[in-house]
Amino acid sequence: MHIAVLPGDGIGPEVTAQAVKALRALAANGPQFEFTQALVGDAAYDAGGDPLPEETARLAERADAVLFGAAGTYDSDLRPAEARGGHALLRLRKRMDLFANYRPVFAFPELLGASTLKREALEGVDLVVLRELTGDIYFGQPRGISVVDGERVGINTMRYTESEVRRVAHAGFRAARLRRRKLCSVDKANVLETSQLWRAVVTEVAADYPDVELTHQYVDAAAMLLVRKPRDFDVIVTGNIFGDILSDAAAMLTGSIGMLPSASLNAEGRGLYEPVHGSAPDIAGKDIANPLASILSAAMMLRLSLGQGGMADRMETAVRHVLAEGLRTADIMEDGATLVGTEAMGDAVAREL
Amino acid sequence: MHIAVLPGDGIGPEVTAQAVKALRALAANGPQFEFTQALVGDAAYDAGGDPLPEETARLAERADAVLFGAAGTYDSDLRPAEARGGHALLRLRKRMDLFANYRPVFAFPELLGASTLKREALEGVDLVVLRELTGDIYFGQPRGISVVDGERVGINTMRYTESEVRRVAHAGFRAARLRRRKLCSVDKANVLETSQLWRAVVTEVAADYPDVELTHQYVDAAAMLLVRKPRDFDVIVTGNIFGDILSDAAAMLTGSIGMLPSASLNAEGRGLYEPVHGSAPDIAGKDIANPLASILSAAMMLRLSLGQGGMADRMETAVRHVLAEGLRTADIMEDGATLVGTEAMGDAVAREL
Ligand SMILES: CC(C)[C@H](C(=O)O)[C@@H](O)C(=O)O
Ligand SMILES: CC(C)[C@H](C(=O)O)[C@@H](O)C(=O)O
Repeated sequence: MHIAVLPGDGIGPEVTAQAVKALRALAANGPQFEFTQALVGDAAYDAGGDPLPEETARLAERADAVLFGAAGTYDSDLRPAEARGGHALLRLRKRMDLFANYRPVFAFPELLGASTLKREALEGVDLVVLRELTGDIYFGQPRGISVVDGERVGINTMRYTESEVRRVAHAGFRAARLRRRKLCSVDKANVLETSQLWRAVVTEVAADYPDVELTHQYVDAAAMLLVRKPRDFDVIVTGNIFGDILSDAAAMLTGSIGMLPSASLNAEGRGLYEPVHGSAPDIAGKDIANPLASILSAAMMLRLSLGQGGMADRMETAVRHVLAEGLRTADIMEDGATLVGTEAMGDAVAREL
Repeated sequence: MHIAVLPGDGIGPEVTAQAVKALRALAANGPQFEFTQALVGDAAYDAGGDPLPEETARLAERADAVLFGAAGTYDSDLRPAEARGGHALLRLRKRMDLFANYRPVFAFPELLGASTLKREALEGVDLVVLRELTGDIYFGQPRGISVVDGERVGINTMRYTESEVRRVAHAGFRAARLRRRKLCSVDKANVLETSQLWRAVVTEVAADYPDVELTHQYVDAAAMLLVRKPRDFDVIVTGNIFGDILSDAAAMLTGSIGMLPSASLNAEGRGLYEPVHGSAPDIAGKDIANPLASILSAAMMLRLSLGQGGMADRMETAVRHVLAEGLRTADIMEDGATLVGTEAMGDAVAREL
């Protein structure tokens, strides 16, 4: 099995290295993995003037799965969009047609203390945000800044086609079937026509899944409910920009954003796996970042793209064990636990495997 | 002083009635208020086929200030946009050019228990979301659903002009000056050109306010920070759609969304005042809604549009007193407090005045 490893920027390289270490430990007595590493993001831009070199994109397309670190650092945001690290991610998503972005959010029983939410609000939270990832205002045309009547005007276009909504709606219903059979579709249909189409199509698709309970929420109400009653959600399906905001808010609820993995899949089940947390340049290179989100992303990769559910289970169990032993990186540290660095946490997981 | 009273739908009429009661109690020994009531939202649609009758709009424009309840109920969302209650609010905002929507979010010391957030995360939270209210994807053209290549396509346009951003940026800096002098501008400049213009203009305006500290956050990061460190925010300035989502999330953090007022002002300081909570049709007509957000909206009206800061202070003090006495509506009820209905809560505030 061929895995493209794109560590990227900030803490990307150090956390991804721990995930590779864990995969190697698993492989010691199982199927072999072949890893090919390539540059992406600012690292690639600095090396050759393009955050997504053609060679990297080809590698990602050819591989059985992509293990991604993080792309872009805040510094690079002064450059034009095409030159920015984060832009590489958008291009790769589009090029590989990774329309279905799954972000599971769960409260680790061991980590309830790390959240700003009360224990009783958090206990039992187990939801997935399914974010459409290749459409919406991220990619809609026309876009840009121009001068109209003597002043600058900025324009972006929110746009969804029926078929774009339909395929992600199907993905949402299928995900709900594997869980508690509740799907909440989030839009802003009281204001936006794009959302009215979204709601209409999701409602049509629901006819194929009579066993799944479908509800609709406006995005502002959904943001409130996530804070108020996060336990009530099972699968949330929503567009690209609303999903960007809601999935980050939901991730932070648990207090363990350093623990949360994500998967971005295309219609063939090929995918890109990355931690939710991003490049965090302020803590990069200090051996303090939490590698568990990257390791859990590798577990999702094993399950969803490589057909290795058993290995995925073992990897997730190993993570639970090191937490139960009391090992903690700085972001989830609490009284009585043992503080460890990025490398030591990775070693501990590899040892378990 | 002439106040247009637009109670609207759902719990709008019952909570607005308590605010009017409080204003009358204040007026007993002070300046006189003249109240003119008119239909808006579903109530107006049901009566005459238009959620914002011309007569209502004219009254709102003529009055010194508008006290608004809530417009639109979930039921009406099956009708075309123009027929919906909520649409009346959008039209009124646009027509009166109410571009600056202030949503103060504060944790009442007496109500910390009602939040899903831990006391230590919540204590001292005191921020204002300043949401631009007359531009963005809410109003941008083109918009609509059409058929392209044999399938339906939904389109909306995010659009900001330089002057639209400039005036709300000035409002943000001025608001920060009256507070802790920190302004956080929220956008999605790593993806959207509209946000790049937003960020550029806010940065230009900052030159006029060297005494205010300006920071920028992406909307996804801002959603996380609101959950993680809400105390760090002073004034947040953002566009219409991001403000819609973030202000609701922020309001829910405090656990007392039934307590939070809002003001929507135009360049002349004329404004519309409404509770943040909306029409809540599920609890309408049961005398259980919390009228304090409407009463506190009336206090904002006294201060910001009617030049009656002293009366506003008295009204806010009265609210704190009834809370200190232990009176609670159902939404903020806790052990040891006294449960009261909408009407009784309004009476208690009026008595204090
Ligand atoms: C880096 C940025 C372009 C990206 C996005 O907005 O999609 C990030 O926030 C994410 O959620 O993966
Ligand atoms: C009712 C709706 C149109 C409105 C909005 O989206 O602006 C509401 O959510 C609000 O925040 O005032």
